[in-house]
Amino acid sequence: MKIIDKVNQKIAANEKFFSFEFFPPRTQEGVEALFERQERMVAHGPVFCDITWGAGGSTADVTLDIATTMQSQICIDTMMHLTCTNMPVEKLDEALKEVKKHGLQNILALRGDPPKGQEKFEAIEGGFNCALDLVKYIRSEFGDYFGICVAGYPEAHPDTIVEDPVQMEKNYQENIAYLKNKVEAGGEFIITQLFYDIDVFFKFVKDCRSAGINVPILPGIMPIMTYGGFKRMTGFCKTKVPQELSDKIEELKDNEEALKLFGMDHGADMCRKLLAGGVPGLHMYSLNLEATVFGILERIGFIDTAKVPRHMPWRLVPMGTRRQVEGVRPISWANRSRSYITKTSCWNSFPTNSWGAEQSKLLSLAIADSSAKSRNMSEGRKKKSLEAWGSELSTLEDVKAVFTKYFKGEISLFPWSDAPAQSSASVLSRVEALINTDVLPIHVQSSVHDVASEDAGAGWGGPGGYVYQKGYVEAFVSPSKFKELLPKLKSSSNLTYVASNNGGDVHSNASASGISAVTWGVFAGKEVVQPYIFDKDSFLSWKGEAFSLWESGWAALYETGSASSQLLKDMQSSWYLVAILDNEFVPKDPLAIFGA
Amino acid sequence: MKIIDKVNQKIAANEKFFSFEFFPPRTQEGVEALFERQERMVAHGPVFCDITWGAGGSTADVTLDIATTMQSQICIDTMMHLTCTNMPVEKLDEALKEVKKHGLQNILALRGDPPKGQEKFEAIEGGFNCALDLVKYIRSEFGDYFGICVAGYPEAHPDTIVEDPVQMEKNYQENIAYLKNKVEAGGEFIITQLFYDIDVFFKFVKDCRSAGINVPILPGIMPIMTYGGFKRMTGFCKTKVPQELSDKIEELKDNEEALKLFGMDHGADMCRKLLAGGVPGLHMYSLNLEATVFGILERIGFIDTAKVPRHMPWRLVPMGTRRQVEGVRPISWANRSRSYITKTSCWNSFPTNSWGAEQSKLLSLAIADSSAKSRNMSEGRKKKSLEAWGSELSTLEDVKAVFTKYFKGEISLFPWSDAPAQSSASVLSRVEALINTDVLPIHVQSSVHDVASEDAGAGWGGPGGYVYQKGYVEAFVSPSKFKELLPKLKSSSNLTYVASNNGGDVHSNASASGISAVTWGVFAGKEVVQPYIFDKDSFLSWKGEAFSLWESGWAALYETGSASSQLLKDMQSSWYLVAILDNEFVPKDPLAIFGA
Repeated sequence: MKIIDKVNQKIAANEKFFSFEFFPPRTQEGVEALFERQERMVAHGPVFCDITWGAGGSTADVTLDIATTMQSQICIDTMMHLTCTNMPVEKLDEALKEVKKHGLQNILALRGDPPKGQEKFEAIEGGFNCALDLVKYIRSEFGDYFGICVAGYPEAHPDTIVEDPVQMEKNYQENIAYLKNKVEAGGEFIITQLFYDIDVFFKFVKDCRSAGINVPILPGIMPIMTYGGFKRMTGFCKTKVPQELSDKIEELKDNEEALKLFGMDHGADMCRKLLAGGVPGLHMYSLNLEATVFGILERIGFIDTAKVPRHMPWRLVPMGTRRQVEGVRPISWANRSRSYITKTSCWNSFPTNSWGAEQSKLLSLAIADSSAKSRNMSEGRKKKSLEAWGSELSTLEDVKAVFTKYFKGEISLFPWSDAPAQSSASVLSRVEALINTDVLPIHVQSSVHDVASEDAGAGWGGPGGYVYQKGYVEAFVSPSKFKELLPKLKSSSNLTYVASNNGGDVHSNASASGISAVTWGVFAGKEVVQPYIFDKDSFLSWKGEAFSLWESGWAALYETGSASSQLLKDMQSSWYLVAILDNEFVPKDPLAIFGA
Repeated sequence: MKIIDKVNQKIAANEKFFSFEFFPPRTQEGVEALFERQERMVAHGPVFCDITWGAGGSTADVTLDIATTMQSQICIDTMMHLTCTNMPVEKLDEALKEVKKHGLQNILALRGDPPKGQEKFEAIEGGFNCALDLVKYIRSEFGDYFGICVAGYPEAHPDTIVEDPVQMEKNYQENIAYLKNKVEAGGEFIITQLFYDIDVFFKFVKDCRSAGINVPILPGIMPIMTYGGFKRMTGFCKTKVPQELSDKIEELKDNEEALKLFGMDHGADMCRKLLAGGVPGLHMYSLNLEATVFGILERIGFIDTAKVPRHMPWRLVPMGTRRQVEGVRPISWANRSRSYITKTSCWNSFPTNSWGAEQSKLLSLAIADSSAKSRNMSEGRKKKSLEAWGSELSTLEDVKAVFTKYFKGEISLFPWSDAPAQSSASVLSRVEALINTDVLPIHVQSSVHDVASEDAGAGWGGPGGYVYQKGYVEAFVSPSKFKELLPKLKSSSNLTYVASNNGGDVHSNASASGISAVTWGVFAGKEVVQPYIFDKDSFLSWKGEAFSLWESGWAALYETGSASSQLLKDMQSSWYLVAILDNEFVPKDPLAIFGA
């Protein structure tokens, strides 16, 4: 979706909003850490996020990769910065086509800084000279496809900031005129350069309006985090720092903690004044860190870090894409939603209120199609994984220890999950007992009954409703344990189960067409919402991925033929994956004991 | 759906089944009473029902009307008898085309009795001589559209029953040969003439099989209800009555009650023996009465009159029609499902798991289309209604009294419902209080929470699940009371409401696109089932019908311009119809009081 449309919706509804800016890290480990941080930050509901273009064009490919992942995997409307630095037209064209392919629809068009080692910006051969040309190019080549944002400089562009007040005023006015040109060429809204003087910002907005620039102007908020960073940024951008602020920062110079807290208080104060002065939203330069930005947004009541809003049990995919209408997913992928999103990205329409047997067939086809596309683990992830899981696995006990540590929260990486485990104490004690008996769980959820939808734990879907969930366990089970388990499963009346080893020895009491609700919610003004279902066919599609992760997600860390690798491969080939759904989700009435 | 397909499914699943036969009453009141009885009888799940052809063709139109109503309104797979008596080919053709138009797909083809006053059957000009010709005609003109059943005579056709044993054996064999011809011409299963000697029946089945007749043979069970009826039927059909039975009936001749009970015990005994001997199902000649038939079926464990099975909160429409897949309806029509079925019969597909805003538009179009087609009240219904509601209404109190009596169960007719009210004691006491304050309810349902789906009261959908329901009230409210009520509705946080007078003064807190689940259920192996929803647009479609019933369903009973008629029309034009849905369906936890 175009950000300007979301911004205009928010303005029309008089809802103030916020957005986060990130920059591309220089290492693959840094990129992975950024994605983890983005998962946490996006959960709080920014209207969009943006990612800057690799400084001097050096990390252009990384930016492209991050931008498309943000859009399609982190599931946030993403704006990619694009600069003219070191970019001949063909490269610009390539970059725009690439992000378009991934559904990304928003570009912040900039001239960019001079390439490294150069003092002054000069257009390269076959490249553009200024952001205006870039805006015009995007519009001429891609029509209305992209939403375009342009930068505004409340104190004029640093290159044009001079001592002489007469010349300065002239430069400032030229800046405004140039900004107007960018807007007229296609810029749909403006994000400003950082500033610390509120009056400067409001004067700039007033001057823009007088000049006939009527698009939304979002203030860029650069939180104060460290003394060095603050000095570097304000120096580089020639930012005017009010005396009082400057004095305070010098005072706290050597007290890191105090400065951080001051940065949050000061940022919150700035934001309050900006909002009171009528800005529609706040664009937060996060510097890829969450603490200060969260601190500011919490202080002004925009977020509550103790309460992550969940519209659905999974992250909603950006609005305006076909995926937005998605309403149902198979429970097996609950902890690997990125994989699910990728594998089903070929679909033209998504199940909304119900799954249906036909959908399971589509899923199996989609998975067959996408099986070759899974990404290799990065070196960084490999290193971290070895640290977490052990550089050598001698016995089954070593493997079990990894499952135990994961569920205890001692390690966050796990082949069968995108995210750290969040086990309740009661689940945890039982998981440890399970592992001792050769039942290695990869997903455990307790039943949920009559829980208020605003509940910080199990709630989702906004206030005023009730949410429900059936108990569900998915676990790898040793062949001998499975032999013991099967008669119990067969004789149970409450449980729906499907089990299979990698070879396809399938056991189940689920009918082929039986699709069970797993998670659902009831709200005022809504039909029943049913985000997760369980059925035999979807499970059988998932089991391929689950078994392959023994190898691609774990054994691949070790040398082929090593004892560690062999141990995991043996488990892959002989153990069973068992999924059990408990249909008895209503707790026994504690009053029933009285015969009431 | 063709009955033979259902019968074969049951046979394959080794599920014994039953069916009911009815005959066309001679008066309109009788027809209306029959429909009421059929509603109750069909609720217990017969595989099909059939209706005999008016004796001598005299009530042919009534039969057609009943057959099509059974199929499309009572919602049961219906088989219509068709005889050659007094029926030239054109008339047969007309009748077949008429029932086909209504989705009825099953015919029991018979020669029929001689017309009244005639001793012997003779074909009329342009008519058929025997059932075989009729079977051939149906197949030649309608191909495979109709499922065809033919009659079997275990003791040979009464016309061919003679004293001489040699001639009798010859006649019997000719009967079997003729039956074989009927089957070969297209008869798909056989229902037998009544009999009381089990051995006769089993010999007949054996002789059929020896002759190469391999289709299912259903025994026709004629329960013994009255002495006179028994003597008349066995005399007319020349039925062999075992001496023991004959003695018993003579013994109980003057004890009506004892004979009825004996009839049930005897019928149950016969049925048990037939089932033990391998019959796939039982065809019950109900004689349009339910007590004895229910008594027999209860004795053999086929039904439990205390527990009506409900697959959905409404009756499922016969299998194989497009309507079968229907899964969601607006709550407003819950008490007028026949009207809803009729008005939406033009739809090509029905909502399954969700309603959706689009569906409300379709509903409004369908209702606009069908508005002219509503049936006039019969004279019989008019008479009964006047008795129930009063031949004169002088004041508002007289109108209120009708609402009170209806909810108390003192009268069964009510303009806004197909069926008698079934109010719990707690609802009833509150309804009376409401009526006193100028709130005249037409639909009241309490909330249902965590109720086992097999519960005899609120349960539906088969065993092993849980059902839920939000509290819902629909009521006509006087203008002054509405003025008082509206601010309360507006300030409530739990309630969704829509109100309108006949003139279209609409008040609501429901968003245009907001569709609320009203009734839902959660089962193993099923997605969430959601039979009833509430939304503003559907309610606004319904209100037209609700307001028009003041006139067509009530005021029309009185002379135009009479005080009674004027009183009702005044209410029609000034009162508001208010629908209120309580989204707080979870009862307050009684343990919460302890702070637990």
